Amino acid sequence: MNTMPLFDKAVIIGPGLIGGSLGLAMKAESLADHVVGVGRRQCSLDAAIRVGAIDEGTLDANVAVGDADLVVLATAVGLAPRQAADLLPRMRSSAVVTDVGSVKRSICDAVAECFKDATKGVCFVGGHPLAGSEQRGVEAARADLFREAICILTPDRRTDPELKAARTVRSLWEAVGSRVLEMTPERHDRLLAQVSHLPHVVAAALVNAISDEALEIAGRGFLDTTRVASGDAGLWVDICLANQQQLSLALRAFSDETRTLADAVDRGDADAIRRLLEDARTRRNACLGDPP
Amino acid sequence: MNTMPLFDKAVIIGPGLIGGSLGLAMKAESLADHVVGVGRRQCSLDAAIRVGAIDEGTLDANVAVGDADLVVLATAVGLAPRQAADLLPRMRSSAVVTDVGSVKRSICDAVAECFKDATKGVCFVGGHPLAGSEQRGVEAARADLFREAICILTPDRRTDPELKAARTVRSLWEAVGSRVLEMTPERHDRLLAQVSHLPHVVAAALVNAISDEALEIAGRGFLDTTRVASGDAGLWVDICLANQQQLSLALRAFSDETRTLADAVDRGDADAIRRLLEDARTRRNACLGDPP
Repeated sequence: MNTMPLFDKAVIIGPGLIGGSLGLAMKAESLADHVVGVGRRQCSLDAAIRVGAIDEGTLDANVAVGDADLVVLATAVGLAPRQAADLLPRMRSSAVVTDVGSVKRSICDAVAECFKDATKGVCFVGGHPLAGSEQRGVEAARADLFREAICILTPDRRTDPELKAARTVRSLWEAVGSRVLEMTPERHDRLLAQVSHLPHVVAAALVNAISDEALEIAGRGFLDTTRVASGDAGLWVDICLANQQQLSLALRAFSDETRTLADAVDRGDADAIRRLLEDARTRRNACLGDPP
Repeated sequence: MNTMPLFDKAVIIGPGLIGGSLGLAMKAESLADHVVGVGRRQCSLDAAIRVGAIDEGTLDANVAVGDADLVVLATAVGLAPRQAADLLPRMRSSAVVTDVGSVKRSICDAVAECFKDATKGVCFVGGHPLAGSEQRGVEAARADLFREAICILTPDRRTDPELKAARTVRSLWEAVGSRVLEMTPERHDRLLAQVSHLPHVVAAALVNAISDEALEIAGRGFLDTTRVASGDAGLWVDICLANQQQLSLALRAFSDETRTLADAVDRGDADAIRRLLEDARTRRNACLGDPP
């Protein structure tokens, strides 16, 4: 429990699974006096109030952000850059803006473009909590969703000249239990392409590659391997497009690895297959041994 | 609970995770008066006795099988065909032999080859319970491992002229809670290549394709997608080689699907990406809706 709230008024644009969990966690840790949710449908806002993720809901983002000292963009990756551009001029000068999107370069560049004009001291820092699931909606939100999770911030002097927003947003994520890593938007997008976006499209390709009769006998191994393929398609199309270049590179590296393995299988090369499987096992188990 | 045991003496060659779980389940359901485990090391047999998977252990398979009415080969896929050939002449005429291996054509053909000579009425039916995990050893064995699981049998008149062994072994698996499917060894190997062997090597390729710095931030999604890659490499080399032809076909279909997706990403084709992700999601969720 903090004794002093970090924020008087926090606005969460899009209080769904991630935004709603952040609202719950902020309230559980007394990090904000007042949490306002902005949504596109009243029923979603009512649900967010019902589960305790926000104190108050509104459909009008422009009004909500006017006196906020924290604004969190928690909507789809494809929408966030435009929303940031629309809202920045309406915020007060000391406000801190952040987001939770899975791709960082597109939003950081879009916000930096806005900052070329007037921003009256508003600061932005890109953020991405590595948490969530294939579920959606505020009904799945949990106050402890970010506990023990990594949260990546991408501080950028173009939108946060004194790195003040970076410090504030770091305090927020640490207070809800996350381990904060800072890196450039480019590095974030390269790593996430490999560890998240690639596995997602590979899981989809796996499901699509097998026959209906094989799917019928799918067991736990197959279902675990392809679990991420049950994520929302629209959201993932946005991510694939926003991170097109890095995902493309990751797919190429993956195709090369698959071909190496397929060649070893085709020529019945037990030593090569064993080496490839053992490498994978050792590398994967090493990251289990030292969980984030 | 059965009132009449199916077997007086059941011998489990290799009472590890699968063999040991079958021993536990047989004893829990009173399916055999006496369960004997055959292993290569006394300490493994002691562990199997300790957890209650077998009543008695021996290092001498030849002696153990002499008066058994059920023999279950539960060793590595690469070893089972040779073991079957060695043990068949030593069994009594009414004995039923089965196995639990992940590839069926290689063992069924090997046993059929032995049956060309004398088999004194011994019958064999190939089996494969779709259960287990990346864990190994009798310490991980559970009496309920096969409950609700599919067990595939591959009846074959070459090794079971009146399909008597098929009926007996079906009763065994049904009694431990499994849903039995019968199919040819070829069909089994084709389906398992798609739903089990392909995901395994793809998971390994995924781990190998990504950088160390990306692995360091791997979250639950990545770890679930690649969970099967933590399986025992030696065991999986055997499976890849024993099912080389079908795995090769499955890898080719998968590479085609991956290329289709990569092309859609490269040209920024939102509609094509959405269609591929939605197909995968719908197909995967359909098999969740009707679990085996």
